Amino acid sequence: MPIVTFSALPARQLFPGAAGHYAHTAHLTVGEVDLAAGATVPPHAHPHEQLSYLLAGRAECTIGTETRELTPGMCAVIPGAVVHSFRALTACRVLDIFTPVREDFR
Amino acid sequence: MPIVTFSALPARQLFPGAAGHYAHTAHLTVGEVDLAAGATVPPHAHPHEQLSYLLAGRAECTIGTETRELTPGMCAVIPGAVVHSFRALTACRVLDIFTPVREDFR
Repeated sequence: MPIVTFSALPARQLFPGAAGHYAHTAHLTVGEVDLAAGATVPPHAHPHEQLSYLLAGRAECTIGTETRELTPGMCAVIPGAVVHSFRALTACRVLDIFTPVREDFR
Repeated sequence: MPIVTFSALPARQLFPGAAGHYAHTAHLTVGEVDLAAGATVPPHAHPHEQLSYLLAGRAECTIGTETRELTPGMCAVIPGAVVHSFRALTACRVLDIFTPVREDFR
């Protein structure tokens, strides 16, 4: 039965202080990402649509030219090809969802 | 800026004791669903692929003929068209992700 426990998957180091556990399904990639306080995901873009749902902590998300603070239960919607970045204001955990699959993360 | 705070969205009653707040993007529908202890989502299927990530509580998920208990941080992967059901063992909160968009939930 297809049940994923993210913490049991190998971690992928993304940037200093930022590592994620990723699972891939038919059409989705989902990752539980932990960021240390102050860690940043620098501006980047990809063709995949992305949702970033804050599970714990506080973070700042910039999409295009706008920056907003996220607290748990808030979700950033990042359309494909739009430049975005992320900064952990405290240690935080984020659930990142991509479609289509991030083949580069397999 | 496209930030979703699920609790600020209108609730959609799904079944007795089960209600969700849903947002729709280009290719995804995401819902934060709260279930009371003992609430059930009866067996059903839909063509959409679904992920159910347990945010809080304990639940039992049946996919096809197999049943597994979920605790926070576990995620059920439900392929399109496969019968599945859900039972809340305690009050619980689940993040449900669908692709493509659940047009029936708009």
